[in-house]
Amino acid sequence: MAQSMMLYWGSGSPPCWRVMIALEEKMLQGYKHKHLSFDKNEHKCEEVKALNPRVQLPTFKHGDIVVNESFAACLYLESAFKSQGSRLIPDDPAEQALVYQRMFETNNLQQKMSFYEWYVPEEERHESTLKRNKESLITELKLWEGYLEKMGKGSYLAGKNFTMADVVCFPVIAYFPRLHCPRERCPRLMEYYEMLKDRRSIKASWPLEWLETPEGPDTFKNL
Amino acid sequence: MAQSMMLYWGSGSPPCWRVMIALEEKMLQGYKHKHLSFDKNEHKCEEVKALNPRVQLPTFKHGDIVVNESFAACLYLESAFKSQGSRLIPDDPAEQALVYQRMFETNNLQQKMSFYEWYVPEEERHESTLKRNKESLITELKLWEGYLEKMGKGSYLAGKNFTMADVVCFPVIAYFPRLHCPRERCPRLMEYYEMLKDRRSIKASWPLEWLETPEGPDTFKNL
Repeated sequence: MAQSMMLYWGSGSPPCWRVMIALEEKMLQGYKHKHLSFDKNEHKCEEVKALNPRVQLPTFKHGDIVVNESFAACLYLESAFKSQGSRLIPDDPAEQALVYQRMFETNNLQQKMSFYEWYVPEEERHESTLKRNKESLITELKLWEGYLEKMGKGSYLAGKNFTMADVVCFPVIAYFPRLHCPRERCPRLMEYYEMLKDRRSIKASWPLEWLETPEGPDTFKNL
Repeated sequence: MAQSMMLYWGSGSPPCWRVMIALEEKMLQGYKHKHLSFDKNEHKCEEVKALNPRVQLPTFKHGDIVVNESFAACLYLESAFKSQGSRLIPDDPAEQALVYQRMFETNNLQQKMSFYEWYVPEEERHESTLKRNKESLITELKLWEGYLEKMGKGSYLAGKNFTMADVVCFPVIAYFPRLHCPRERCPRLMEYYEMLKDRRSIKASWPLEWLETPEGPDTFKNL
């Protein structure tokens, strides 16, 4: 089954990484894939353009089915291979609701993490915007700290089991230790990161560039 | 069942509106609800704070289950009431993949529609950013035009049937005619809007302010 899958991906992109974790969790090793460099603009190649009008990564194909949005691909894989590998969305309505809730809250964390200065041309930047964005990221981190605190030591994002909430959120959380976020800013998230970083599916899909350069820049040093 | 549900909502908010459409489609009329005014900051009330640490609308509760992210609430309702009312996520893998794909692409349209000038303080605005944002919204509209064009006349966003893709995206699309987007900028989306605006679930949840003031501001006039 995995042989009829093709993933175009870029290293370090949380959307790509989450699809790779989902593939590993669903025991779909052996899928075909092509690593494309964002720096070299390789993701704007004809192969990707033919499958993805947004010309973005991930671009994912299974047989004739193309599903490129990372959340969509993850939900599709869980649904199409429900009984294979890890069960990522539980049947119990209350558990399911929490998994969905944390999955979609991930967009908030990811958006606030994607620091202003990465996307806005230098001449359009303002100190006041930077300050506001930094405060908003700190508030966001506090929320997640609270969730983990409430759930208790050793918990995953949506309870006692690893779920789709972890699949989609871990690649975002992993940026905080990598970019030197002070441990005291989010001790629970750091514990959570330590607990998950050696999980088989996560280790198997670890960003190539992070293997080559384990130390990231210190973007979050003063957070 | 609907009696044990409570929705806190604000008028005209696409995230609130989509949850209301989902409730209507799943035949959950009779749910309790409270309309809160964003203008009067009513959504920052204690009731909402107690259920939603983000202090945002929608805030939704079903029995003891709290699920506030709009996509999460929609998926939860479909799953918990799968055989009731409209079937919003099909079983067929290819159809399902397309529903998920268009659902999550909606975030792009919504983000690009949320015009820069609405959220950025005046002194931090730049003509160059406005220009870039406008171009990016036009490119986004072209994508959706292409999707509808390819699908053929009278189609919904993910095919011949009304699905969750329509539930989550219609409230965003409805802003284009309301804010005077020129018809020629997105003729297919305008046809789609006309086809859906009188659908029972959509009419029943139509924004209160839009009923009171059918004519919106001309924000998109020069798009």
